[in-house]
Amino acid sequence: MTEPTDAVVRVVFACVCGSDLWYYRGESPFEAGPIGHEFIGVVEDVGAEVRSVAKGDLVICPFAFSDGTCPHCKHGITTACANGGFFPMNGDGGQGEAVRVPLADGTLVSVPGSGHPDDMLRSLLTLSDVMGTGHHAAVCANVKQGDVVAVVGDGAVGLSAVLAAKRLGAERVIAMSRHQDRQELAQTFGATDIVAERGDEAIAKVKEMTGGVGVDAALECVGTGQAMDTALRIARPGSTVGYVGVPHGVELPVDRMFFRNVGVRGGPAPARAYIPELLGDVLDGRIDPGRVLDYETDLDGIAEAYAAMDERRAIKSLVRVGSV
Amino acid sequence: MTEPTDAVVRVVFACVCGSDLWYYRGESPFEAGPIGHEFIGVVEDVGAEVRSVAKGDLVICPFAFSDGTCPHCKHGITTACANGGFFPMNGDGGQGEAVRVPLADGTLVSVPGSGHPDDMLRSLLTLSDVMGTGHHAAVCANVKQGDVVAVVGDGAVGLSAVLAAKRLGAERVIAMSRHQDRQELAQTFGATDIVAERGDEAIAKVKEMTGGVGVDAALECVGTGQAMDTALRIARPGSTVGYVGVPHGVELPVDRMFFRNVGVRGGPAPARAYIPELLGDVLDGRIDPGRVLDYETDLDGIAEAYAAMDERRAIKSLVRVGSV
Repeated sequence: MTEPTDAVVRVVFACVCGSDLWYYRGESPFEAGPIGHEFIGVVEDVGAEVRSVAKGDLVICPFAFSDGTCPHCKHGITTACANGGFFPMNGDGGQGEAVRVPLADGTLVSVPGSGHPDDMLRSLLTLSDVMGTGHHAAVCANVKQGDVVAVVGDGAVGLSAVLAAKRLGAERVIAMSRHQDRQELAQTFGATDIVAERGDEAIAKVKEMTGGVGVDAALECVGTGQAMDTALRIARPGSTVGYVGVPHGVELPVDRMFFRNVGVRGGPAPARAYIPELLGDVLDGRIDPGRVLDYETDLDGIAEAYAAMDERRAIKSLVRVGSV
Repeated sequence: MTEPTDAVVRVVFACVCGSDLWYYRGESPFEAGPIGHEFIGVVEDVGAEVRSVAKGDLVICPFAFSDGTCPHCKHGITTACANGGFFPMNGDGGQGEAVRVPLADGTLVSVPGSGHPDDMLRSLLTLSDVMGTGHHAAVCANVKQGDVVAVVGDGAVGLSAVLAAKRLGAERVIAMSRHQDRQELAQTFGATDIVAERGDEAIAKVKEMTGGVGVDAALECVGTGQAMDTALRIARPGSTVGYVGVPHGVELPVDRMFFRNVGVRGGPAPARAYIPELLGDVLDGRIDPGRVLDYETDLDGIAEAYAAMDERRAIKSLVRVGSV
């Protein structure tokens, strides 16, 4: 610990994020050091000023730390915290045995109860990022009861977005996916329709499925130019594209957006702000986002955790580090 | 009349839109022909299929015509009507003695009562475009009770947006204006603060006024790159910039928008859809958007109506064509 507001968390489960692969693939520069930003664990020690978590607590740590008290945190945008930051840019990461968590009171959420089964722990792990991120896409796109929603992207975030849209009351959820295993998981999560086409064909298909109107909410969960283009074209006039994939080569066509009255809204999910809302549903068994974790290994096998995702053998890799 | 769904409306009041000036200035190509898209008038004649308006009705005609029955109209986005269009691109315009209005049942709104005073007629005229457009900016930015709102642009639309934000319950409305007469009208419309600075200085001022946080809703009512840049920078994380100025040289900085969680949403206002909601407030005297019309002339003086706006001697020009 370096600050009295820190906690040290012994990692139980960690996982690999699609964005970690940028380093793995050499697409982003990487200096040897801690990595990872999604984990649950048990509090080992807390600084003198920490009040809301205690040694021995099972905690969920969101991918960004935040004080919980600044105007942005109070407004629910914890990823804009005036004093916060992102793992592992602060010098510590989740893919390791223990993590120093800054601003522990604002950042960590203790999980009530004990003896949670393995499946539930996996779902709790997804609240650190991917489930909160899928939920953010749905929130940004104003998904509401009875909506027709399309999700662009069948990665762990896209699949989580399907689950989030269903949870928020969407009547019809169109999952855009080419991979059979992901299509099946999307259906398990509540997708009512699958579109396997891509690009113009996918757009035509969704238009046809919606009587030429487009969807009430399009959730862009990839971050590429093509995914955003698809989302913007299938979104009905008056709707907002919720986007959560970190933009890579995305350009926003302002004239087309304007004349079609289609907005965009998104960003790094305030996962911390969403945990209280989503946690109850996980603990009650109403949602099981942990199913996106379809590969597992331990810290010694971490290289394989990356390789499995890189080669698309896995949707998302779980890394078992310790036990509760 | 050419279609059984047409009505012919004798124009009472018309006005000049900022967008009409593009033709006046030669910034947009113009072929001699009808122009104008904001007017109120009296129905002269209706086609065989018209049911909702009758000869002699005082009507408001929004700047776009729409059938009122397609999925986009039913969804409230009448400017995306599957069968609609925009004046004067259909070959007829409001700055003349009479207008053929297509899809009269969907497009026109009859004004109840009679003997409306001149001031009220001016306010009714603004529902054809500028008040609905200001309202659209506020709706797209999700302005709600208690919000801190900033309006970029002090033209007729920006001033209407001030009024709209106040009407929707904004607690604080920051009008960004350099012109004293417009500042005063903004205050009459409910602006609580004036920022006369522009660009970086304006951004710094608004940040300072909001404790470094930014505003809950930024309304971009100009359409230039600088105005959009200002709006995006003063918008707090998690908020949406509502934009209604037709984009001219606007580029949307997706990376900055993403990492700040600031969205954009806007387009041609579905003025028709907003008329029922706004009309009652005009008739009850709760809002008086007609005050933006600070210059007036008749059809013979139409050139001067343009010149006064072009030279910024007028906020917006009223053209008196006939009487009720």
